[in-house]
Amino acid sequence: MGNAKSQLYPEYAIILAMKVKELGEFRLIDRLNKMIADAGINKTSPHLILGIGDDAAAWQGDSSIQLATVDTMVQDVHFTPDTTTWQEVGWKSLAINISDIAAMGGLPHYALVALALPEDTDVENVVELYKGMIEIAKEFKIAIAGGNISRAPQVSVTITVLGSSPDNRILKRSNAKAGDVIAVTGYAGSAAAGLVMLTKKLKLEVKAARYLRNAFLHPMPRIEEGRLLVKHGITTAIDTSDGLVADLRHICEASQVSAKVNIEQVPINDVVKANFREDARQMALGGGEDYELLFTGSLEAINKVKKEAKCPVTVIGEITRGEAGKISLFDANGKTLKIDYMGWTHF
Amino acid sequence: MGNAKSQLYPEYAIILAMKVKELGEFRLIDRLNKMIADAGINKTSPHLILGIGDDAAAWQGDSSIQLATVDTMVQDVHFTPDTTTWQEVGWKSLAINISDIAAMGGLPHYALVALALPEDTDVENVVELYKGMIEIAKEFKIAIAGGNISRAPQVSVTITVLGSSPDNRILKRSNAKAGDVIAVTGYAGSAAAGLVMLTKKLKLEVKAARYLRNAFLHPMPRIEEGRLLVKHGITTAIDTSDGLVADLRHICEASQVSAKVNIEQVPINDVVKANFREDARQMALGGGEDYELLFTGSLEAINKVKKEAKCPVTVIGEITRGEAGKISLFDANGKTLKIDYMGWTHF
Repeated sequence: MGNAKSQLYPEYAIILAMKVKELGEFRLIDRLNKMIADAGINKTSPHLILGIGDDAAAWQGDSSIQLATVDTMVQDVHFTPDTTTWQEVGWKSLAINISDIAAMGGLPHYALVALALPEDTDVENVVELYKGMIEIAKEFKIAIAGGNISRAPQVSVTITVLGSSPDNRILKRSNAKAGDVIAVTGYAGSAAAGLVMLTKKLKLEVKAARYLRNAFLHPMPRIEEGRLLVKHGITTAIDTSDGLVADLRHICEASQVSAKVNIEQVPINDVVKANFREDARQMALGGGEDYELLFTGSLEAINKVKKEAKCPVTVIGEITRGEAGKISLFDANGKTLKIDYMGWTHF
Repeated sequence: MGNAKSQLYPEYAIILAMKVKELGEFRLIDRLNKMIADAGINKTSPHLILGIGDDAAAWQGDSSIQLATVDTMVQDVHFTPDTTTWQEVGWKSLAINISDIAAMGGLPHYALVALALPEDTDVENVVELYKGMIEIAKEFKIAIAGGNISRAPQVSVTITVLGSSPDNRILKRSNAKAGDVIAVTGYAGSAAAGLVMLTKKLKLEVKAARYLRNAFLHPMPRIEEGRLLVKHGITTAIDTSDGLVADLRHICEASQVSAKVNIEQVPINDVVKANFREDARQMALGGGEDYELLFTGSLEAINKVKKEAKCPVTVIGEITRGEAGKISLFDANGKTLKIDYMGWTHF
């Protein structure tokens, strides 16, 4: 406040006087990106391809595009020890980063782990956490190449994953164009249903409970599917971490287009339908953390992906000309529905 | 507890039953490294050169060695808002990572910023934090290529810096050998003195206060000096983040050698000597966060570095055969001194 800039731009002074929760996560990120852009530091970086604003950063390496992403899981924000094992925390904290590399169509190679721990943490819990991380690192052939441990009032795990795109093509959020078909891998809303089951301590049938628990705590990043998208010429993708509608909005904002989604086509797992009935659709549209791939492209390319993918691939709508970031939902009768599924934000 | 492994190895069960503070930071890191080694995930990574245990991870890229490091600053652990401006937090949180790249003899290129914030954080504070980060990013031509923001009970900043070693040679902790001379850039203990000044709210003369504040809150990573070391064939270095003796011990443990340090030769800035008298030496040997380079090599090579470096370069001792990690301190009369300067650990 009171500096030269805030005097020149009164709206800037207003933002500075806000709390983070008043400004909101996405507007805060926009604000910080603008500072970086104004400073020109990224423009002078000769090999940078994508800075902030996609699933991962990307730059041109000597012979392939390099990818890097970082994500944090904080105790009592992203997980609670009474519903989550430490092994699951370890798995998921690495999985959500691998998923960002999947959303770029890349392969993950190295992980750096920054752990923050209270000093009275049981060593066994840290060992379990690493078990989960090592389990998924093995699955995806990732080396845990470095890290850092520091003291903090609660546990948090921040992981950086470095990867590459061997064929020098990446999936961006900003490539969608009017006429593209929108598709998604797997099911939407299963993670949200899993979270509700855990927090409300619902007693469900064993197989259903296992499916939902894994959907929320043991997501399987879609690396193979991301590679398939690149193979078949798809150029637009995001992973569904904030929620189907919210993540589609990220694509539409970055690509300066609108989208129409047929909510009857959004794939919802039978377990979710059977156990959450009228809430299932809201979970599918608004629930975050599925870590599926949401992508757009020609129907022809998407059909090729569908044919080769080991998981369901479902067409749910299309990209249209119009206001950047506008998402319209309609049902089987073509009736437009009101959107009150905003997805998950941090503030 | 109670699993197959703990029954086979009783000492493993004892470790599992400990709290993190009982095991200690370095033994915890050893334990986790052993898990990673046992799982074999890093061994199967074809290009990895250095995993956990040095200042940064290193792997062979297509035409140069790639470097990556991560470090966290947590509110009320690494900084307190009443003694530190947010701009200083931003500068330092990036500086400590750049320093790790300096200790490998590399150049920094990209930074990823993972920010954890309480929701009632003032936006102005976040903007100030970014100002500090952008300031040092500009200084070292680093692109802020990505990041993540999440909610947490207190502010923490975790930054990953990616760099490279253009001439395909890196400075390791494990290359020291008996007969090597030990040298250090700049001064030792200035950051510790700065911390004492700030926490005890000492009123010092303006220039002295500014020097000490900057030493603790505005460290200048020794990138240029790291490059000089590589140029002159030095192969062993670390940055002094834990403290001079503690960091020398890291080198000696990794290299399986001992070291002798002449405490009269340890360079202490006049400001520290004048204001902290009998405490100055303890600050210089035990105080962390100077982010200077501590390195070993032939006297000839070190003299070449000394001639070209823009900062003081001081010989403080030599590497000897003997117990791995044993550090002996002696004074001008050759009298050995007891070490009670352990340096800083997190638990």
